[in-house]
Amino acid sequence: MVKKKLFRSGPYADFFSQGVQVGNTVYLSGQVGTDEAGAAPADIVEQMKLAYAHIQSVLAEYGATMDNVVEETWFVTDVGDCMAKVGELFGARQEIYGKTPEVCQTLVGVAALVDPTYHIEIKCVAVLA
Amino acid sequence: MVKKKLFRSGPYADFFSQGVQVGNTVYLSGQVGTDEAGAAPADIVEQMKLAYAHIQSVLAEYGATMDNVVEETWFVTDVGDCMAKVGELFGARQEIYGKTPEVCQTLVGVAALVDPTYHIEIKCVAVLA
Amino acid sequence: MVKKKLFRSGPYADFFSQGVQVGNTVYLSGQVGTDEAGAAPADIVEQMKLAYAHIQSVLAEYGATMDNVVEETWFVTDVGDCMAKVGELFGARQEIYGKTPEVCQTLVGVAALVDPTYHIEIKCVAVLA
Repeated sequence: MVKKKLFRSGPYADFFSQGVQVGNTVYLSGQVGTDEAGAAPADIVEQMKLAYAHIQSVLAEYGATMDNVVEETWFVTDVGDCMAKVGELFGARQEIYGKTPEVCQTLVGVAALVDPTYHIEIKCVAVLA
Repeated sequence: MVKKKLFRSGPYADFFSQGVQVGNTVYLSGQVGTDEAGAAPADIVEQMKLAYAHIQSVLAEYGATMDNVVEETWFVTDVGDCMAKVGELFGARQEIYGKTPEVCQTLVGVAALVDPTYHIEIKCVAVLA
Repeated sequence: MVKKKLFRSGPYADFFSQGVQVGNTVYLSGQVGTDEAGAAPADIVEQMKLAYAHIQSVLAEYGATMDNVVEETWFVTDVGDCMAKVGELFGARQEIYGKTPEVCQTLVGVAALVDPTYHIEIKCVAVLA
């Protein structure tokens, strides 16, 4: 059977892993923009930063950084608001990546995320070494 | 050219495969909660069980089980109903997995699925041996 | 660090790649049905053809064709319209593939795509040699 390296964390740790490594691929669960108290700030830009902070935490468990991310899907609840702030969003994201991001991206508008206060969820795949 | 092992089944077998294996990765098409007559029960919990039964059928074609699943994306039409029943859903899912699931999960609310009676579609990736 | 082969193109080339190759897997960003002037025709069938044309352009950068695609996710804004035209859509798609497509497919209805004129976005994964 396949060898998986799991990283469990958060309130649903008994139901899914935040990361699963098989071979040199790391799959990540979708990450949302919650702070240490579990609350999501009103602004999508702030939520995006927090979602990437969670992604970085998961990647760190695998000795990885944003450099290892190869694709990301953005699920957003308000595409209009997202596109109105796209310069600000992509500017802040570039700082998080530390350079021009070397990733694919797909961005779609969803009807809802798990909590009505969430505006963005980011799902990534990373590749090690 | 890449060697692919396909598993075709169902009304759209001429248009897509339910599973495609390349190397040790098996990609699965999104599975919905239809019964043998092709109908979907009203309750999302019952639909979820049927969707996993379809997933297990596809995996079996590759000699695989739920143990091989590394990530799943849930597309649901009513996140509120889904979260209201999350204990029941995750309890029934844990029985299907037979243990604490070793998978990533992303759950988003969609505007619609292929048929208006469908409440959930589950898309998985599995890795063999 | 992982070796990535990037293909950058389009107005967001500084923010994401249209394709990222790692090992023999090529991840593609979601492609929409825009023409050379950047406009999207009204009909989803025409948009689908253009989206696949973009996918073929990205694949060509990796020496690949539709034969290399192993999974596709269709994000559509109007599932009812999509299913009403499913024969026409899948017929045109079969011509693009040049044979019975050897891919998995997941099709979900989204609340919105990046531009209100877009009706379909297709996200693919391809595997080389």
